[in-house]
Amino acid sequence: MKLWEKEYKLDRQIEDFTVSNDYILDQKLIKYDCIASIAHAKMLEKTGILKKGEAEDIIKELNSIISLEKKGRFKIQKEQEDCHTAIEAHLTKTLGDAGKKIHTARSRNDQVLVALRLYYKDELNGCKDNVGNLIRAISKFRKKYGATKLPGYTHTRKAMPSSISLWSDSFVDSMKDNIKLIDFTLDLIDQSPLGTAAGYGIPLDIDREYTAKLLGFKKVQQNPIYAQASRGKFESTILHSLTQIMFDLNKIASDLIIFSMPEFGYFELPQELCTGSSIMPQKKNPDVLELVRAKYHVVLSYEFQVKSMAANLISGYNHDIQLTKEPVMKGFDITKDCISIMAHVFENLKVNEGRCESALTEELYATEKAYDLVKKGIPFRDAYKTISKEY
Amino acid sequence: MKLWEKEYKLDRQIEDFTVSNDYILDQKLIKYDCIASIAHAKMLEKTGILKKGEAEDIIKELNSIISLEKKGRFKIQKEQEDCHTAIEAHLTKTLGDAGKKIHTARSRNDQVLVALRLYYKDELNGCKDNVGNLIRAISKFRKKYGATKLPGYTHTRKAMPSSISLWSDSFVDSMKDNIKLIDFTLDLIDQSPLGTAAGYGIPLDIDREYTAKLLGFKKVQQNPIYAQASRGKFESTILHSLTQIMFDLNKIASDLIIFSMPEFGYFELPQELCTGSSIMPQKKNPDVLELVRAKYHVVLSYEFQVKSMAANLISGYNHDIQLTKEPVMKGFDITKDCISIMAHVFENLKVNEGRCESALTEELYATEKAYDLVKKGIPFRDAYKTISKEY
Amino acid sequence: MKLWEKEYKLDRQIEDFTVSNDYILDQKLIKYDCIASIAHAKMLEKTGILKKGEAEDIIKELNSIISLEKKGRFKIQKEQEDCHTAIEAHLTKTLGDAGKKIHTARSRNDQVLVALRLYYKDELNGCKDNVGNLIRAISKFRKKYGATKLPGYTHTRKAMPSSISLWSDSFVDSMKDNIKLIDFTLDLIDQSPLGTAAGYGIPLDIDREYTAKLLGFKKVQQNPIYAQASRGKFESTILHSLTQIMFDLNKIASDLIIFSMPEFGYFELPQELCTGSSIMPQKKNPDVLELVRAKYHVVLSYEFQVKSMAANLISGYNHDIQLTKEPVMKGFDITKDCISIMAHVFENLKVNEGRCESALTEELYATEKAYDLVKKGIPFRDAYKTISKEY
Amino acid sequence: MKLWEKEYKLDRQIEDFTVSNDYILDQKLIKYDCIASIAHAKMLEKTGILKKGEAEDIIKELNSIISLEKKGRFKIQKEQEDCHTAIEAHLTKTLGDAGKKIHTARSRNDQVLVALRLYYKDELNGCKDNVGNLIRAISKFRKKYGATKLPGYTHTRKAMPSSISLWSDSFVDSMKDNIKLIDFTLDLIDQSPLGTAAGYGIPLDIDREYTAKLLGFKKVQQNPIYAQASRGKFESTILHSLTQIMFDLNKIASDLIIFSMPEFGYFELPQELCTGSSIMPQKKNPDVLELVRAKYHVVLSYEFQVKSMAANLISGYNHDIQLTKEPVMKGFDITKDCISIMAHVFENLKVNEGRCESALTEELYATEKAYDLVKKGIPFRDAYKTISKEY
Repeated sequence: MKLWEKEYKLDRQIEDFTVSNDYILDQKLIKYDCIASIAHAKMLEKTGILKKGEAEDIIKELNSIISLEKKGRFKIQKEQEDCHTAIEAHLTKTLGDAGKKIHTARSRNDQVLVALRLYYKDELNGCKDNVGNLIRAISKFRKKYGATKLPGYTHTRKAMPSSISLWSDSFVDSMKDNIKLIDFTLDLIDQSPLGTAAGYGIPLDIDREYTAKLLGFKKVQQNPIYAQASRGKFESTILHSLTQIMFDLNKIASDLIIFSMPEFGYFELPQELCTGSSIMPQKKNPDVLELVRAKYHVVLSYEFQVKSMAANLISGYNHDIQLTKEPVMKGFDITKDCISIMAHVFENLKVNEGRCESALTEELYATEKAYDLVKKGIPFRDAYKTISKEY
Repeated sequence: MKLWEKEYKLDRQIEDFTVSNDYILDQKLIKYDCIASIAHAKMLEKTGILKKGEAEDIIKELNSIISLEKKGRFKIQKEQEDCHTAIEAHLTKTLGDAGKKIHTARSRNDQVLVALRLYYKDELNGCKDNVGNLIRAISKFRKKYGATKLPGYTHTRKAMPSSISLWSDSFVDSMKDNIKLIDFTLDLIDQSPLGTAAGYGIPLDIDREYTAKLLGFKKVQQNPIYAQASRGKFESTILHSLTQIMFDLNKIASDLIIFSMPEFGYFELPQELCTGSSIMPQKKNPDVLELVRAKYHVVLSYEFQVKSMAANLISGYNHDIQLTKEPVMKGFDITKDCISIMAHVFENLKVNEGRCESALTEELYATEKAYDLVKKGIPFRDAYKTISKEY
Repeated sequence: MKLWEKEYKLDRQIEDFTVSNDYILDQKLIKYDCIASIAHAKMLEKTGILKKGEAEDIIKELNSIISLEKKGRFKIQKEQEDCHTAIEAHLTKTLGDAGKKIHTARSRNDQVLVALRLYYKDELNGCKDNVGNLIRAISKFRKKYGATKLPGYTHTRKAMPSSISLWSDSFVDSMKDNIKLIDFTLDLIDQSPLGTAAGYGIPLDIDREYTAKLLGFKKVQQNPIYAQASRGKFESTILHSLTQIMFDLNKIASDLIIFSMPEFGYFELPQELCTGSSIMPQKKNPDVLELVRAKYHVVLSYEFQVKSMAANLISGYNHDIQLTKEPVMKGFDITKDCISIMAHVFENLKVNEGRCESALTEELYATEKAYDLVKKGIPFRDAYKTISKEY
Repeated sequence: MKLWEKEYKLDRQIEDFTVSNDYILDQKLIKYDCIASIAHAKMLEKTGILKKGEAEDIIKELNSIISLEKKGRFKIQKEQEDCHTAIEAHLTKTLGDAGKKIHTARSRNDQVLVALRLYYKDELNGCKDNVGNLIRAISKFRKKYGATKLPGYTHTRKAMPSSISLWSDSFVDSMKDNIKLIDFTLDLIDQSPLGTAAGYGIPLDIDREYTAKLLGFKKVQQNPIYAQASRGKFESTILHSLTQIMFDLNKIASDLIIFSMPEFGYFELPQELCTGSSIMPQKKNPDVLELVRAKYHVVLSYEFQVKSMAANLISGYNHDIQLTKEPVMKGFDITKDCISIMAHVFENLKVNEGRCESALTEELYATEKAYDLVKKGIPFRDAYKTISKEY
């Protein structure tokens, strides 16, 4: 059964190719489609398209699907293509005609849009929570080691004295700006697409404000063509938000990989967090940090994928855009995992105060020496030249 | 003369390679560096590092550079590397010791950061203005032709009836969301980096709140390591904002290229906006639209450039990041140009109402026909199947 | 059990994070690791490190793993991390001390390298076969419809007369160049890395020429640091080869999507190859073509992922590089699928000769008209101007 | 004057936008267009379209343009759009009717294609020469310091002993593979597009084999649609070749930046190759290496730009593709510069043998110790476990 079932039979090879792994990815969306369908059913009842009893039956059945799925007992079949078909099929099987009515006044296109948007909102909030945990872990780490001084580097060369607190705070501040970006993204996408149908509205009187309110959206996304066009765009901004978080994790990882080398020893990663080599018995490797570093590029490539794929297309839904689902889903999974693991790293990370101190060599104070001359009234540029002769 | 001039002479090949085209790009930053240097001089006077007269002389000279540059008479020399060196050299030449003091309590690194940030704010506001103009041009176009109906497409196939107003509004709504994104970006970067020096602060008492206020920044970017780390990040968000605008222009161009084909004829681009072929006498080509479509990918590649280049680097300034300047500058130039040209296109674009009307063929109303059955009480899915047999 | 099992226990969260989905991806590599291990065992026997009986037992067991895996009965456990561990664990369990010797004179790093390289060679040859099938499908299509003339377009505007044969041949020629690129790639990577150990060779006498010969490699990749560094690079060239194929498929799809629109009707995609809409009963959508078009961007993003991820790393193995496995594997799967489905499309694609003919409107012959004047002795540029006045 | 000059006047804003910086970029192509035009003129004479005297005059004038351009005295005017127009305008001005005939049997499109292809061949050969020089510089460096041992790293942790010769050779071997890739690319693009006109051939008898031979092409690119379609594709493969070279330079730079840190001191970059800081008097920064590292990402973004921009377009020339010229030109310039500067770095780079030796700490020999046990008959895995307890 397909939502667009017709007299002819779809070519088997084409079916395999077009369904692809949608039916697997969509497991995550079942809950959100049910929630949206409940709101839709209420609206259909309100506007008289569904009878009261029909709406109640549908809503009961949709809630039962949510429960089933939670227990791992609602599986989308490949031949059903996606969650929307699986849910409608279930409703039709259990409720008969009432089930056949749920699709009134909507299109699979707006089902996809609304389910994804609900999912995105949940995931973005999940990311925010994780970033909050990370900030707490960094702050705890900073509390313990913040007073320790260590060299600050520019051009990968010792520059001026820095400290663990300065270093830690730089990431806290950056993560706080990332939260602002997530909040913006949440606000941007907080528009209900439900009721835009296939991108050109619906020849029926429906109450879009009502479903938007039921679903907790801040506003209705009025223009149906824009509802479609924002797919790809909203995903881009989401992925941009994720890459900004991942970018900071990439930098933390880059710092820790270098400065936990025994040659520096500023940081120490306990061996329980390190993996070994199959051939070299002595090795304790910071795999976790290398993977975090690398995963920035994975998420970045997803952002680029969406941005490249969605271009050069005319207005109105194009199937191309369906493929933006996977990179965003994976982007969320990877980013949330990486934030969590980095919080875990900070909870276990040690600072070797002795190594830090002994690394505070004399040349780090060259600028201070120049400023000592400045304080004696020598113009900075002359002071600079005087001191630079010592090096 | 270099800001870091020492006893030894830099290898010539290395000099050519490292200066590259910075001295050309930096022409755009002279004004902003002068503005920031004026604030810096005022602060140095306030904190007693500069005498009143010195500060006044410096400020006068900086204002004179701004005027000279406006008239095209302040050119950075290649051997000066960048605008910061050219400006300090000028001050030292005209003012002697006072000029040598201007660099007190700052680093070229925060000069770069603050000048760029002021430049970014101006450019983002410029983009906003251009988007405003475009929205007005679309709205005027919509006023003229909005009532015209034409086919709406999905999967590049006729789907349901649409209209010029629906189509126009989709871009207006999208552009309004783009403005929200620009506003967010403006807010995000509205942090004064001045006083963070080389990324580890300065061993002198300075008044960062004061310079921030003088320069119109909303707040001080407190952490100096984050000030450095935000380079690359802020540029990413700026370029993301630009690609979102360019994405919509890409879609407008894609629509117009296809639907102004004589085979459709819904839109008409006057011949004054079309170029010809060197060999085919009949051709009238929509080059302008093709270029706008393509330039999305140019700006997108700049975003990716910054995001790829800035990764896998440890904290603290790395010269790599200097190369983010060019893609952002070019991104602004291209985006502003493309928005303007698209406004110009809308001002000249015609809708062929006859062609639109005759394209409203019967199958566009198949959904309506199904809904007629729904209104008679037939469940939607059954109605759908009944009507689908006709096609 | 891990290959690097030590006294301490790896932190559980770190384990989950670092193993990730390697154990799933590696199912595809079991066969190749066994083949390489057989060659390695033979070499160890030849050089006296394994006794004859030991080698025979190991080889027998490795062949048995190959059979088991073929039947779906050799599954890597998550706690085993990867196929290499699963295989060594199996050998140790069944053979005791002999199993513990198989890892002599090699590292997991060169196991990975050699298994992947054997896998890549198989997959590249598989792609070549698929491209061959596609060329045959296009040629058959061309045989049937080649004589049909239709408009050739530039700038998405009618330009000069073209034909189905001209159009078909353009893709055949391009695909033939793609095969040259695959052949080059096959030649480039045809270097045995086995014996480079962890990237710095092995303090034992081994016979790398012998294993290379047994495994059918054209040559030994002598430098062990380069063996490691070529990971990421070889994957890049492989993915570049794949994107070149996908690029052509993207263009075929772009052509067919537009020119099978009923408004043109040059091509016809039978309805068995088209999917429908959940709301619009009349729709027959070319989803398959849209997906092929989109999947170019997926593979392209994988290429960029590898190229971005592998940069800014020092020499010697870094775990980052492990993540290049998934994008290449997926790149192969997608590319092979898309080539096959496109061959299937060509086998079913129809040309509507009537629509093609009636589209051959007069302006397509404007250039010919100019050349008629040229034949009468008028300089081309004058002829061009004369004719252009007619349009 | 434009090649497609008509009765109407192109809108000024559109003209500025569409010409863009083509007239500047095209300065590099003047020579190649002249060379191709000479071959074209000879062919027109051979086939009787030009009279002998006309052809001779044209050829003489084209040679004179080549000389003028060499001396910087042939400048393309903005209103001429590109080099092709400037050259035809010059011929028409100096020769009258003969000049008006040079465009017979060709289109600007194939002029662009053939000029670019000649330029690409020259540039690729230039890259090859530069890579040759770099290999020589590395080899000379290796000759001087090769015997020095230093630690080999994996996961940025000391792994096993390595040496300067092992390290140097890894890049020599990789660069040799890069040369193979350049040679393949040269071979791939060595197809004459001249005579394919606007992508659909020409309604005149022309001798394409003859011009191909005159221009030194290995073969004729027969299919005119493929000639157009290969634009974007050939550029992709060129840029892929360049990114492979840049990738190795990125790795060399990454190694040198880290291991010339005073904390390691394995390598020493003479101060003449280092730049300073505007604030910190002691600094000697490896800017040159950081820039090389960063420029990999610049070239990579150009590759992605071309690959993203050229997709989702129908067959036949689209103006989008014109924008591929700049990224390729810049890609060549950057890559050639970076190879040269890296050769210069190797000519000046020093190895600090004392620091290398003292870094050869005991744990680098752990694997050797395990193999000592293996030689005594202990299975490798048991030997590994025994030794690992020591660490």
